[in-house]
Amino acid sequence: MGVVGEFGLIARVVARSGTAALAEVGPGDDAAVLRTPDGRVVACTDVLVEGRHFRRDWSSAEDVGHKAAAANLADIAAMGAVPTALLVGLACPSSTPAAWLEGVATGMAEECAPFGAAVVGGDTSASAPDSASVVLSVTALGDLGGRAPVTRSGARPGDVVAVAGRLGWSACGLAVLRRGFTAPAAAVSAHRRPRPPYAAGPAAADAGATSMCDTSDGLLADAGHLAEDSGVRIELDGEVLRAAFVVGPLPQVAAALGGDPLGWVLTGGEDHALVATFPPGAQLPAGWTTIGSVHDSDEGGPGVRVDGVPAAAVAAELGEGTGHVHFGG
Amino acid sequence: MGVVGEFGLIARVVARSGTAALAEVGPGDDAAVLRTPDGRVVACTDVLVEGRHFRRDWSSAEDVGHKAAAANLADIAAMGAVPTALLVGLACPSSTPAAWLEGVATGMAEECAPFGAAVVGGDTSASAPDSASVVLSVTALGDLGGRAPVTRSGARPGDVVAVAGRLGWSACGLAVLRRGFTAPAAAVSAHRRPRPPYAAGPAAADAGATSMCDTSDGLLADAGHLAEDSGVRIELDGEVLRAAFVVGPLPQVAAALGGDPLGWVLTGGEDHALVATFPPGAQLPAGWTTIGSVHDSDEGGPGVRVDGVPAAAVAAELGEGTGHVHFGG
Repeated sequence: MGVVGEFGLIARVVARSGTAALAEVGPGDDAAVLRTPDGRVVACTDVLVEGRHFRRDWSSAEDVGHKAAAANLADIAAMGAVPTALLVGLACPSSTPAAWLEGVATGMAEECAPFGAAVVGGDTSASAPDSASVVLSVTALGDLGGRAPVTRSGARPGDVVAVAGRLGWSACGLAVLRRGFTAPAAAVSAHRRPRPPYAAGPAAADAGATSMCDTSDGLLADAGHLAEDSGVRIELDGEVLRAAFVVGPLPQVAAALGGDPLGWVLTGGEDHALVATFPPGAQLPAGWTTIGSVHDSDEGGPGVRVDGVPAAAVAAELGEGTGHVHFGG
Repeated sequence: MGVVGEFGLIARVVARSGTAALAEVGPGDDAAVLRTPDGRVVACTDVLVEGRHFRRDWSSAEDVGHKAAAANLADIAAMGAVPTALLVGLACPSSTPAAWLEGVATGMAEECAPFGAAVVGGDTSASAPDSASVVLSVTALGDLGGRAPVTRSGARPGDVVAVAGRLGWSACGLAVLRRGFTAPAAAVSAHRRPRPPYAAGPAAADAGATSMCDTSDGLLADAGHLAEDSGVRIELDGEVLRAAFVVGPLPQVAAALGGDPLGWVLTGGEDHALVATFPPGAQLPAGWTTIGSVHDSDEGGPGVRVDGVPAAAVAAELGEGTGHVHFGG
């Protein structure tokens, strides 16, 4: 870890990390100890690799911290839970400036703070001898507060499909950065610092959501997870999606670059919107928009259709793969 | 991820991972949900980097899985807790054979199985574009079963210092591998698959241990953590350490390679022995050996001495740094 030294680095990062409200033992010991009021803990891990998920010339250190935290906190929300803590595994070149690492820690702390969450532990290592890239692996913990976890497998025919959050903004921002532009700011900042609709997750659970999923891989792919795991067919309404989600910077950027902005909405990942299904007649919580309906799986098997067209064909027509592909491959 | 594909890979790895006894929602959803009988969760993260912590030509895939799990499970034990689950963040080249990844998962599953623990979640990514190396970041969760967590800061003057587990065997095995040998097997296998004394952690907590630490950085460095965090001076007895811990393959290999095997015992890391302090008169649980005593910090400040000589001087004389240095730098 060069001049900073592993232990010095940890101390600096911890100093930026704030305090988790539920931590009984915080960073600096062999392990953290965290209270779990619900009697269960929700846990997930997300890996961010430099050159795949972020570039240090396109995102500030604080951006990377926000993004790494957001990817995990959105998964916690997608179970119907509230984040309580993060643990961070970090491999970075020994030449990494301490200020860059402190920036990452600051970004994570800022993303966690509204929940009373914070980084409670972690480990650092020098990158592999053949690499000058940063690898971040973040684990988030969360608390269900007495709610039943909302899995991917509970969607039932007759349910409505709804989305909370933004779709396609991160992909739009990436398209902008790829062309060498840094505006419009709304698109670029959406790529650098996604803004998942965290509160919509627990609210959906409270409203009786039957299945839910973070859209980190793009709406079609992630609605596909709900369809596959629930054994159902999901029908999405293209005009509703266009009216509700081709908004903000999307029309303008699509017009400037050419192409149909609905492609970003359907296949763009990393906005960390939530997609969920609700029983017929359920009162959708604030922030949720109905985009389709759940049907019995037919001879084609479980899957997603947009206006009756299978997701793979829709994505191919829009010039994108069905799953989100990170910019580094 | 090449032919295997990220989702196919995850499915294969999960199929090898067994089931965590406390999991309410296991792998394959946005996040896992795990019961926490104690009302708290213990959590830690450890990063293993190819070329720093393991080499694929020196360790099998199963070895790497065992070692990655053990490094984390030992940290859980060092708090006085029992492991319940792992989450795995993995960055690997797209050329990584699926069989290698399945081997890692098998090793992790085997290391977890005695506790009813298993991998409950994770994420995979292709390595950075500039790297052909594997980076593993493992998070372990554990349960205290009603015990108070044993931190690093509770050692008090008058306490005894004790160790459970093996010291220096992994460093001895590494020395063997570095010379191009693969025997004695006891040394090499200790490097490939450390055998932490997991049960000794909760047993020490039950016996009233005042402070405890995993010796992943080597005895002198990790006893140093107890001394620093507790504000005390720790005196270790060199002859006791030599009699109790220069055992197994250590004398033979040291004689063959030249050098004092006490160096491995004092500074060799990655055996994941536990070092703890107990109140005077405490009955040490099975497997614990008294190696020293706790004293008021004097004018030199908190620290560790061996037979009255400061740790830094001891380590320098034995030709090692005071902290464990991984073989890749």
